[in-house]
Amino acid sequence: MSAENLHVGVIGATGAVGVELINVMFDRNFPVGELTLFASERSAGKTLETKYGTKTVTLFSVEEARKCDIVFLAVSGDFAKEYAPQIAAGDGALVIDNSSAFRLNDDVPLIVPEINGDLAKTAKLIANPNCTTAIAAVALWPLHQAFGLKKVFVSTYQAASGAGQPGMNELREGLAAGLKGEEIKAEVFSHPLAFNVIPHIDTFQENGYTREEMKVTWETRKIFGVPDLAISCTAVRIPTERTHSESIVVETEKPVTPQAARDVLAKARGVKLVDNPEKLEYPMPINATKQYDVEVGRIRTNLIFGDHGLELFVAGDQLLKGAALNAVQIAEASIA
Amino acid sequence: MSAENLHVGVIGATGAVGVELINVMFDRNFPVGELTLFASERSAGKTLETKYGTKTVTLFSVEEARKCDIVFLAVSGDFAKEYAPQIAAGDGALVIDNSSAFRLNDDVPLIVPEINGDLAKTAKLIANPNCTTAIAAVALWPLHQAFGLKKVFVSTYQAASGAGQPGMNELREGLAAGLKGEEIKAEVFSHPLAFNVIPHIDTFQENGYTREEMKVTWETRKIFGVPDLAISCTAVRIPTERTHSESIVVETEKPVTPQAARDVLAKARGVKLVDNPEKLEYPMPINATKQYDVEVGRIRTNLIFGDHGLELFVAGDQLLKGAALNAVQIAEASIA
Repeated sequence: MSAENLHVGVIGATGAVGVELINVMFDRNFPVGELTLFASERSAGKTLETKYGTKTVTLFSVEEARKCDIVFLAVSGDFAKEYAPQIAAGDGALVIDNSSAFRLNDDVPLIVPEINGDLAKTAKLIANPNCTTAIAAVALWPLHQAFGLKKVFVSTYQAASGAGQPGMNELREGLAAGLKGEEIKAEVFSHPLAFNVIPHIDTFQENGYTREEMKVTWETRKIFGVPDLAISCTAVRIPTERTHSESIVVETEKPVTPQAARDVLAKARGVKLVDNPEKLEYPMPINATKQYDVEVGRIRTNLIFGDHGLELFVAGDQLLKGAALNAVQIAEASIA
Repeated sequence: MSAENLHVGVIGATGAVGVELINVMFDRNFPVGELTLFASERSAGKTLETKYGTKTVTLFSVEEARKCDIVFLAVSGDFAKEYAPQIAAGDGALVIDNSSAFRLNDDVPLIVPEINGDLAKTAKLIANPNCTTAIAAVALWPLHQAFGLKKVFVSTYQAASGAGQPGMNELREGLAAGLKGEEIKAEVFSHPLAFNVIPHIDTFQENGYTREEMKVTWETRKIFGVPDLAISCTAVRIPTERTHSESIVVETEKPVTPQAARDVLAKARGVKLVDNPEKLEYPMPINATKQYDVEVGRIRTNLIFGDHGLELFVAGDQLLKGAALNAVQIAEASIA
């Protein structure tokens, strides 16, 4: 694909991820020649203010979408399942899909560009990973390359933004109600999120894990190309607005020290080492929000695995590295 | 000690834990004959509304405190270090100290009554454990007895209440400010807590863990009587008001199934099994708050340790089982 003046389509441009997709393309000077924002009949014809100027929303059709060079899908898995293959077929557009629809499909690469970006050069349909997975993966991959990951235990602290703008709105409304002593409503989340913690994201599987938790296992294995990687997750929604944090323990194949891990992570792409406890510097949502890099810190020798183990904490913007940024980086890799 | 009409003293009665101590004694019909609330000169003479009626605060002195049968200390470790031994010495009062001052002292029992309550019968000075430790311990002890704990990995979701009433106030003020787009102040916590996650509670140790994290290791080992128990923790403050949650992975000595674990936990004292994901029932702060029992759920076979491992989630009221309730239960055990 030529790297100049691409015709880019965005489906789901008004959602939390869609808005960030357009911002990120602009901020990274992605070679957008023409930008088409697609929506259903309900929104078609409306105008949207974007960094590329005021845009009128186009009614989605496969035919129109196929005219693009690249189409970003920031909509539901059901929509993606139906339309992504049609948009990509033959001489259609390169489709980069943010949903989970194709992530585990053997024919569809699942890409975190810092890890396996070369797969973007030949594919016509590419899956963007789950947000929690992408954020953990950029921190874990350099450690895996340097020390070999034998076991990985993840517990997440996921923001309302994981449920899009409606999730963020429900949190803010719930906090305002809670502060006044009023009832906190729950429509987006399964329970009130304000002043609460919900150990339940996505649907429960037969094995007792949620899909969100299993995505971390399934997707990390695929992205790393390690089909039997021992990785488990507890995924928890907490009352923050944006940026997911993760507490991670790893056992390594080779001996590792916190300083050796820091040296590796300091050079790693997509990672910002924030690990000066004596200066009260460690990864936190207030700092990681709206940043491209995933913050990694609190690195210490795990008490259980000793010199073959680390404990660490990461914080990454779910809407950026966990979604929009990674998708744009995939597009960049496809034309590199 | 006679179990009738005890003279009970509370030092720190206006703090978040002190208030709950008085409530819990009343609600559990602890045999209080006389209740004396002690404070420094600043508060002495003031009146406090309690379930035992209006109480005038008495100026603290060792001499007056020694006249009590039981004295609860809900103040700083420094105060406890100086005065607890003097209050307890000789024919002084039984002292139950909520601070960390004596928890690791070989001569002072550290008690979670469901586990080692018999130690309360002979001691004159008893330490009440760290909140996170006590909450995890009631869930882990029955599993340890039934299956043997080989490795324990804990990540915590700790409420502002862990920093007392000032912490809860700062959170509420921060949330109100954040909702209005105003600056969020941090005086109690090292960073703004509202809309944030802070992976830092108590001071950092040389090994990179915080004292809060090491307390879980040190104190659980002492309470369980297993000096080399392999247990590590990442302790994280989140913007909730009350009740700590914990994500826990265990490797067991003996094979274990989720159902076998549920059967054990369903019968365990101090535990409420809340584990019906299909009904959206799992441990959460909104339900565990102001409850005596620690909620345990999300029990599943850990993907990494297989039939020798479990993953689970707990939620317990930090001010109750994590502090006031446990202290009163210690007092009950001392007169049982």
